[in-house]
Amino acid sequence: MEIKKAVITAAGRNQHTLPMQMLIDCDGEEKSVFRILIEEVLSAGVEEIAAVVAPGHDRPYAEAAEGHAGRVEFIPQEKPLGYGHAVFCARDFVGSEPFLHLVGDHLYVSGTGKRCARRLVETAQNEECTVSSVQATRENLLSYYGVVGGMKVPGHDNLYAIENVAEKPTPTEAELRLIVPGLRAGHYLAFFGMHVFTPALMKILSQQIEQAGPGGGTTLSDALAVLATREKYLALQESALRYDVGGKYGLFFAQLALALNGSDRDSVLSRLLELVAQRELIRPGEGA
Amino acid sequence: MEIKKAVITAAGRNQHTLPMQMLIDCDGEEKSVFRILIEEVLSAGVEEIAAVVAPGHDRPYAEAAEGHAGRVEFIPQEKPLGYGHAVFCARDFVGSEPFLHLVGDHLYVSGTGKRCARRLVETAQNEECTVSSVQATRENLLSYYGVVGGMKVPGHDNLYAIENVAEKPTPTEAELRLIVPGLRAGHYLAFFGMHVFTPALMKILSQQIEQAGPGGGTTLSDALAVLATREKYLALQESALRYDVGGKYGLFFAQLALALNGSDRDSVLSRLLELVAQRELIRPGEGA
Repeated sequence: MEIKKAVITAAGRNQHTLPMQMLIDCDGEEKSVFRILIEEVLSAGVEEIAAVVAPGHDRPYAEAAEGHAGRVEFIPQEKPLGYGHAVFCARDFVGSEPFLHLVGDHLYVSGTGKRCARRLVETAQNEECTVSSVQATRENLLSYYGVVGGMKVPGHDNLYAIENVAEKPTPTEAELRLIVPGLRAGHYLAFFGMHVFTPALMKILSQQIEQAGPGGGTTLSDALAVLATREKYLALQESALRYDVGGKYGLFFAQLALALNGSDRDSVLSRLLELVAQRELIRPGEGA
Repeated sequence: MEIKKAVITAAGRNQHTLPMQMLIDCDGEEKSVFRILIEEVLSAGVEEIAAVVAPGHDRPYAEAAEGHAGRVEFIPQEKPLGYGHAVFCARDFVGSEPFLHLVGDHLYVSGTGKRCARRLVETAQNEECTVSSVQATRENLLSYYGVVGGMKVPGHDNLYAIENVAEKPTPTEAELRLIVPGLRAGHYLAFFGMHVFTPALMKILSQQIEQAGPGGGTTLSDALAVLATREKYLALQESALRYDVGGKYGLFFAQLALALNGSDRDSVLSRLLELVAQRELIRPGEGA
């Protein structure tokens, strides 16, 4: 199984300025969020990229792609029918091939020489199946994520065979269906925002969207729960850091993580401590 | 003397994405850089605003102005003839009135309840003259700024009568002409990016631009050096922090300063330390 295509979903109506936000990447170069994502994909050897965007957003996104705009196909999601539907919008682009999928509002900071997308694509190619990157996540944060349950694959440190998938489970649901033996107490495997899907996913999404009727949609987790009953489906546990750059201070902390991982580490850390110390001296309302 | 107008220069060709960059302001609200600047102006009681931008940039800037777009007049700087010329582009807008001027690639974090623009405008109104906000700046940084020399105004802690102005002076030039008695050794008063000008400035700029001929321009510092010989011209020393958001990591440190100054201070500081500690455990090339 070879993965040649990638789908980035970035159709959030409220986040039209997000892909244009500029950050200094680990290599010290200033890049847009969207370009950093594209380079994550390219690092995995995947060169055909589609981006699902809200109608009319292809121009600003193409600009944000900077030098890579020529290799990105823009697909509009005509109606805001949710995340599962956004992935489904790329069905003609992916055809009958497996594909890498990234969400457009996350950034991934690997901490090792190998980037997250590359590690995931290699795993999917070796295992010839759908693989979702996941991260051990504390119980109190499960309401933000899709969460999987399953068992460790013998002989692999970081691979799990997925049996159940639930979208934003409560701690009680999680305890009933999503316990993963071997994880720290109170921790579960939550989606990391990056997957490799077989073409089977599009068929399941198609059925679920049809069942939902006009104006309905489906979550990706619902479709993956079905997929887990039909096919081999693995989770790859990531120790890298993932940043929700659409969330409050998400860009700030992503920038900090990129800087701490790159060549500017020492200068950024020392300016940071200098600023914190300086502000301690001039606290709001205490003078200056 | 009442100040009713403000001119923001943002005509840098390379910085067309800058005004659209989003930051969380001290009040916890997500705003564009341009909107934060506009609110700095409004806080000083100044409500008529012109922004000098590169041709074709008025649309993205108007979008970045968010709710304030209606009160901003956009003036194109047709040719990139430098900073002094960009200010001069607003001559019809200011007419024969004094005006507040801010550069579009700086953010100001006051550290006190009163914002920097407001403090400056109040000073100019009281003193009835041109006033430039300045900051004590180490000798080795003078090559980034316009720098003034002069003497403390008796009876004021933070006001100086400006005698000389030089653009990006060498340490030797500074030592010859820009020493300010009373500052720490090796420190000079450098522009903070915020001024109140009397209409006299536009006349001087006009003469200098005419002398430079077509394709020439002028620096603001050159014009202010002439103004200092003709009119009362004061410097207001600022202890607030100023961020060059067009520079490398400028947005990042501006965001940190805004957060440390606002209601999210404690949560941002604790996440920050958590991330730094976590990255110390997973240093590049050392595993994970």
